[in-house]
Amino acid sequence: MAVHGPFIEEANINRVVLSRFMPDEDLFESLKKIAKDHGIERGVILSAIGSVKNVVFVNVRSHAGLPVKKEDMMEAEQPGPFELLSLEGNFFPSQEGGEPVIHLHAILGTSSGSVSGGHLLKATVFATVEIILGSLTGSSVYKVKSDVTRRMELLKK
Amino acid sequence: MAVHGPFIEEANINRVVLSRFMPDEDLFESLKKIAKDHGIERGVILSAIGSVKNVVFVNVRSHAGLPVKKEDMMEAEQPGPFELLSLEGNFFPSQEGGEPVIHLHAILGTSSGSVSGGHLLKATVFATVEIILGSLTGSSVYKVKSDVTRRMELLKK
Amino acid sequence: MAVHGPFIEEANINRVVLSRFMPDEDLFESLKKIAKDHGIERGVILSAIGSVKNVVFVNVRSHAGLPVKKEDMMEAEQPGPFELLSLEGNFFPSQEGGEPVIHLHAILGTSSGSVSGGHLLKATVFATVEIILGSLTGSSVYKVKSDVTRRMELLKK
Repeated sequence: MAVHGPFIEEANINRVVLSRFMPDEDLFESLKKIAKDHGIERGVILSAIGSVKNVVFVNVRSHAGLPVKKEDMMEAEQPGPFELLSLEGNFFPSQEGGEPVIHLHAILGTSSGSVSGGHLLKATVFATVEIILGSLTGSSVYKVKSDVTRRMELLKK
Repeated sequence: MAVHGPFIEEANINRVVLSRFMPDEDLFESLKKIAKDHGIERGVILSAIGSVKNVVFVNVRSHAGLPVKKEDMMEAEQPGPFELLSLEGNFFPSQEGGEPVIHLHAILGTSSGSVSGGHLLKATVFATVEIILGSLTGSSVYKVKSDVTRRMELLKK
Repeated sequence: MAVHGPFIEEANINRVVLSRFMPDEDLFESLKKIAKDHGIERGVILSAIGSVKNVVFVNVRSHAGLPVKKEDMMEAEQPGPFELLSLEGNFFPSQEGGEPVIHLHAILGTSSGSVSGGHLLKATVFATVEIILGSLTGSSVYKVKSDVTRRMELLKK
């Protein structure tokens, strides 16, 4: 674990990748494949629209403090399908190497017109996901386990 | 209808258009006007914030399968006004020509602080909508009716 | 107050800033600091993900008209913490000078899996906020008080 601090760095998004994910694709695996095949080390979702099913997400319990304990994360598993109303997030390399660390938050439309969502752990494409991913260049940050939050957080080396 | 498959293509967003939509403008018509006047063939919403009224949106019923039947789409019509909390989406040319196919998902804040939303069919500007639209170049995808979803989906020719 | 009209202008986002905000930072103050330190006159949030606490937001009451009266804005103050599921918005200079006018809409995940949110007045970072801000160049719009909405709206001079 490392001591983390705030940082601000200038970067560029000179290249984007447009993709359509097909029914039954795993959202996380499809993102990793794009990252690998197109040499995108640091990526950010600029736009995503579509529908998903078999979704697992977590939210933090009210009045939780830092570091967030496991029992403070409320997990929801929902079959759906749902309209994917918003997908925010990014991926960065881990300091230890290996696969990129993907951080995604999803917002889902339900058949009642109400909306649910959270920090995404798993999602499968229902009909389609149209995604535009930006390749972030000029950045030198990594995901490193934080001594404060006990999660993988961005750290500028 | 056509057999669709996944695709990934490299593209660029070198040009953006900033616009303010005024009260009572139709969101879809205003987007089409920008596309036409500024020669944007393929566009993606990079940011949108404002408020809307007279909104119609749909969500898919739980446990629906593919292709989604008409009775599996739950329509909601709401006068609002609502804060426009998120607007995701894009437009691409149809293979058959004519107007671009606009695909939008909206998330709306209600006066109780709860949130609703879905796949957007209609919305009118309430006080303002500030929108930043990216022009996607280097792309060669079109919207074509899919044999699987029976909707207009992205297809790389 | 000024008479406002629609506008469309071509602009560019050639430079982005990536930042991590730390626990207990004020979201608005941190954005202002980036704007000042990095000479970003007009900025747009391209991506934001993280968690927040001590949030104040407003939504417009159903059936409200223009100009929106103070009693038509419903204020919610919530301690959280919440997953920050979406943060949309921008900042532009005021015509009168001084600090930039920041316009933010936030969507928050609650421990029940439901979602709340609105026009953001205040938020403090809980564990982290990872933000990618685009610097908008080629734009000449300002925030000016509108005669119609009685709020600060975008105006092209």
